[in-house]
Amino acid sequence: MRTMSEVTEQTAPRPRKSVLDILFGPPLANADDSEKIGPAAGIPVFGLDALSSAAYGPEAALTILLALGSAGIAYMMPIVLTIIVLLSVVYFSYRQTIAAYPGGGGSYTVASENLGARVGLIAGAALLVDYILNVAVGISAGVGALVSAVPALYPHTLALCLVILVILTGVNLRGVRESGLAFIVPTCVFVVSLGAVIVIGLIKTVLHDGHPISIAAIPRCGPAMTTVSVWLLVKAFSSGCTAMTGVEAVSNGVPLFRDPKVKNARTTLAVIIAILILMLAGIAYLCQSYGIAATVSDQPGYESVLSQLAAAVSGRNVFYYVTMGAVLVALALSANTSFADFPRVCRAIAEKGYLPHSFTIRGRRLVFSIGICALSLLAGLLLIAFGGITDRLIPLFAVGAFTAFTLSQTGMVMHWKKNGGPRARRSILINGAGALATGLTTCVVIVAKFADGAWIAVLAIPGLVLLMSVIRHHYEGISREVDDSSPAKLSGIEPPIVVVPVKGWSKIAKKALRFAYTLSQDVFVVHFEPIRQGGTQAGSELEKKWDQYIVHPAVDAGLLPPQLVVLQSRYRFVTTSIVKYILDLEHHHPHRTIAVVLPELVERHWFNYLLHDQRTALLRVMLLIRGNGHIVVSGVPWYLQS
Amino acid sequence: MRTMSEVTEQTAPRPRKSVLDILFGPPLANADDSEKIGPAAGIPVFGLDALSSAAYGPEAALTILLALGSAGIAYMMPIVLTIIVLLSVVYFSYRQTIAAYPGGGGSYTVASENLGARVGLIAGAALLVDYILNVAVGISAGVGALVSAVPALYPHTLALCLVILVILTGVNLRGVRESGLAFIVPTCVFVVSLGAVIVIGLIKTVLHDGHPISIAAIPRCGPAMTTVSVWLLVKAFSSGCTAMTGVEAVSNGVPLFRDPKVKNARTTLAVIIAILILMLAGIAYLCQSYGIAATVSDQPGYESVLSQLAAAVSGRNVFYYVTMGAVLVALALSANTSFADFPRVCRAIAEKGYLPHSFTIRGRRLVFSIGICALSLLAGLLLIAFGGITDRLIPLFAVGAFTAFTLSQTGMVMHWKKNGGPRARRSILINGAGALATGLTTCVVIVAKFADGAWIAVLAIPGLVLLMSVIRHHYEGISREVDDSSPAKLSGIEPPIVVVPVKGWSKIAKKALRFAYTLSQDVFVVHFEPIRQGGTQAGSELEKKWDQYIVHPAVDAGLLPPQLVVLQSRYRFVTTSIVKYILDLEHHHPHRTIAVVLPELVERHWFNYLLHDQRTALLRVMLLIRGNGHIVVSGVPWYLQS
Repeated sequence: MRTMSEVTEQTAPRPRKSVLDILFGPPLANADDSEKIGPAAGIPVFGLDALSSAAYGPEAALTILLALGSAGIAYMMPIVLTIIVLLSVVYFSYRQTIAAYPGGGGSYTVASENLGARVGLIAGAALLVDYILNVAVGISAGVGALVSAVPALYPHTLALCLVILVILTGVNLRGVRESGLAFIVPTCVFVVSLGAVIVIGLIKTVLHDGHPISIAAIPRCGPAMTTVSVWLLVKAFSSGCTAMTGVEAVSNGVPLFRDPKVKNARTTLAVIIAILILMLAGIAYLCQSYGIAATVSDQPGYESVLSQLAAAVSGRNVFYYVTMGAVLVALALSANTSFADFPRVCRAIAEKGYLPHSFTIRGRRLVFSIGICALSLLAGLLLIAFGGITDRLIPLFAVGAFTAFTLSQTGMVMHWKKNGGPRARRSILINGAGALATGLTTCVVIVAKFADGAWIAVLAIPGLVLLMSVIRHHYEGISREVDDSSPAKLSGIEPPIVVVPVKGWSKIAKKALRFAYTLSQDVFVVHFEPIRQGGTQAGSELEKKWDQYIVHPAVDAGLLPPQLVVLQSRYRFVTTSIVKYILDLEHHHPHRTIAVVLPELVERHWFNYLLHDQRTALLRVMLLIRGNGHIVVSGVPWYLQS
Repeated sequence: MRTMSEVTEQTAPRPRKSVLDILFGPPLANADDSEKIGPAAGIPVFGLDALSSAAYGPEAALTILLALGSAGIAYMMPIVLTIIVLLSVVYFSYRQTIAAYPGGGGSYTVASENLGARVGLIAGAALLVDYILNVAVGISAGVGALVSAVPALYPHTLALCLVILVILTGVNLRGVRESGLAFIVPTCVFVVSLGAVIVIGLIKTVLHDGHPISIAAIPRCGPAMTTVSVWLLVKAFSSGCTAMTGVEAVSNGVPLFRDPKVKNARTTLAVIIAILILMLAGIAYLCQSYGIAATVSDQPGYESVLSQLAAAVSGRNVFYYVTMGAVLVALALSANTSFADFPRVCRAIAEKGYLPHSFTIRGRRLVFSIGICALSLLAGLLLIAFGGITDRLIPLFAVGAFTAFTLSQTGMVMHWKKNGGPRARRSILINGAGALATGLTTCVVIVAKFADGAWIAVLAIPGLVLLMSVIRHHYEGISREVDDSSPAKLSGIEPPIVVVPVKGWSKIAKKALRFAYTLSQDVFVVHFEPIRQGGTQAGSELEKKWDQYIVHPAVDAGLLPPQLVVLQSRYRFVTTSIVKYILDLEHHHPHRTIAVVLPELVERHWFNYLLHDQRTALLRVMLLIRGNGHIVVSGVPWYLQS
């Protein structure tokens, strides 16, 4: 008896080229998911975040040291060296993660597999917070570079940030391969030009015996506000740690690499970290030798550290503007790392039911569109809340990244303990060192930055965990109620009671009545009539012609004629009166299904709907809200020809 | 065979006291439409508009005369006297209209009955434009009085305007009786305090032989920019004519008066016009004797003419602030005349099919809520567009009012010609004089103010007429297609083909399937499966258990088992694939109805819907848009218990 009709290789159901096609490119089929990349594209896609951190990390530390006046600059080198050591530890840790999780070893995966779902959720929440902040900080720092080069733009900081956010969102909705290609050139220009600044600066420093002469004027540093203290240095270190954000990205994106995946991913990570270390060391050393301090970023006259450095080394010539342009583009695009990873982490979490299912749906271009839009929205809100000023966002940053680092490394330790392997002891040692170093740093960052804004991140992470738990709980509740593995009950099916509300006699009503008889012979035609002042009712056209229009044709066709129900009310609540009547009917026939047949006029243009009252739509919604399992609503559309 | 079930005097279908009740009061039954008023309430409800015109009319004329420097003030008296003569002619004209149209003789009614539907529409459009402008001008002038008294509020002009608009809208949504009562006190205070200013000013003038001494300093008048010319005086007269707006209101609202309607309405009109004439004459005379000129209204330092006058007569004491408060309240509330009349004119036009039917639906409080909201929205947009500055709105004003005046008087002339009557000759003479005077004034106003903004009104009126014609045409088209006076066709009814799209096997799907069998035995269960990379499909749970879950129970119940349709696509367009399948099915069975049964999960809270993809809703909309007359969509709701 079973008939199976399988429609394979259905042609793409696309009637025409739409606005979406033009903006985001044509849709990609499932098999098009071969958008794989090698190290050359991997460095911009996954590394831009880490690399561009060099532009705001040292500056964030220098901003704290500003309190010490010009004497503060001397403390930069030791702080950056500490960060470089930490970075190396993290590098070796993540090398192992890449090998152990070629299917994508993001903190979320590693922590949930090895430390349990609950801890995994904390890692996931920390990552999501980190990604959102990365977008906001990247864009705001990029705009910071722009307003350093063109001070006239300073008042438009926030507007510029939001414009860049919108452009990035658009690029990413097009898909990841285009993103990689679009970002290779700016990354190269950034690395090369900043490298050139550093190299030229070093040569000049050596030639001048460690005291090079600045070409452009360096903004004067204010007087010392306080004396040096461990607390101040710890705060500077905590701010500087933002230079380390983004290292996580590669291990999370391993499956995107072309084969051999592990080798390609490791090469990418090594190149990224090596460049980053060189940049950080170079910048710190040159700041010290040129005597460059930070400027206050939320006041006009602000100039970024990189801008000061480039101007000091080369003067404000073409090369300076190229460098600053590259810094702007690289920083703004660094947010792209988040756009590549945030939706993937969301998908992984959503697949376990902790986030709405829509995060798992791939959009037209095989990217997780909902995740991209969510990221864009949240980062936009952050930018607006903090006015697009990097310095105000920095204290929130790093908490999420370092929490994720720590949980990921700890998870790896458990991984090796469980799975053993030839060199398990060595692996445990490496990842254990990573976990210890990043764990300590996390605590330091939280304590040092708590009052300045880290508390927001500290609240946001458990808040997100709670939200995700509630979502999962809700889905589980639905599953419990809805899931079924028993056969259908199809015996004793009785035809429903049919209710047809009509305004008057028309072709629309005729069609609805005809459909009503396909359902059942128990048909009630409901007609509303207001009680007007004066009292006596003339009775409507429908009542007068009832026998002629309806009863005789029904009898002729051998059907039971419908019942006419005239609802009257001193009020003008047509909809509520009809709903009440249907609920009463349902109450009197508790075992019958009530099928409400709604005649609907379908207009050609949406604005034509302004010409009709929306009572049918309202009736549908009210029946859904106030109804129950016995009421089924059917819309019988009438299409206008003209 | 006919069963008629009549539900008379159904109890009010109101489950509980809602937010709407608290804001707008409990709903009123149809018979509550006894909200009739006498002259005491009629003067504030219909007269506030006309009376408060005294606050901006003379000022508008003085603003034009500003170009002549202090010499300009001398021309005020002749201009105001001309306006008073015009006002008297209009008064006698409208007295006749009230008697001839006790059922409400608005320009729209009079013009369409006597000059044809097309001309009536022009009158209607002119009135609507006039009412919208009246709201905007009334509110902005009221706020002008406020910022004159409290100059610190000047920067918040627009915000204040919008706040007052929102309050007025709320009051009017409560219903007209409350409005009348709420406005009697402010109107009395306005008339009495402004009257006192004028009387005291006149006494002082007489005591000082025509040269009274101002108590407060009067702002200095700028130097003359030009010499006097007929053109300038005509422009000043045109601006001053805004003082006449609002006279129309009484004749339009006759049915709202308690019996004897005509007498009450005429008394109301006479009192309103008498007070207005006294005020205009008094203000003009005092401006001349005190040497008060206008100030520039869109610049800080602005002070309204009435504020200068009150301060000059009495100084800035308590009496001054009471007067200015009364001016503010009266001006702001003058917009109320429009709120009472605009929805009625809309209703009259909508009843003939020239505006959407929803304008004829009375809301909870027996007022035409849609009309009130439309007026509020349009006036709000005007206020925003013109920054809440009265002076910029004045040139748009008066065109609509005088067009309506002219068409109404012309219509009355035709009325007397047609209907004769004992004193038809005299009536024709009176209305003819009115038509001539207002017609001439209309031309003068349009020419004098065209470049300053009257062109907007001149464009808006025919634009509105066109829009209304298009709406009527659309309704007529629908009627032609839909109207029917032939019996229902109920023979040869065949059960439909039923399509049930399911995501998987669940209680929701089971319920939908059971409902499907109440419709027909031709059931297709449609299931979507994406083609994943790799190729081979495992087949879903539904396919594996098909026989056990569905076929056996169907056979046991003596039903034809459903067909399983598995849709596969390389794309992820679940919804479009299903729509395409249904359209294909319809194409192959052109004479059958296709009933699509959609299983729907009903959540308790709206935000829970964020957790579900909206594919069911999307499918419904797409089937409505791309479907045709043979496809009927039924939603089978599943209510979550927890």
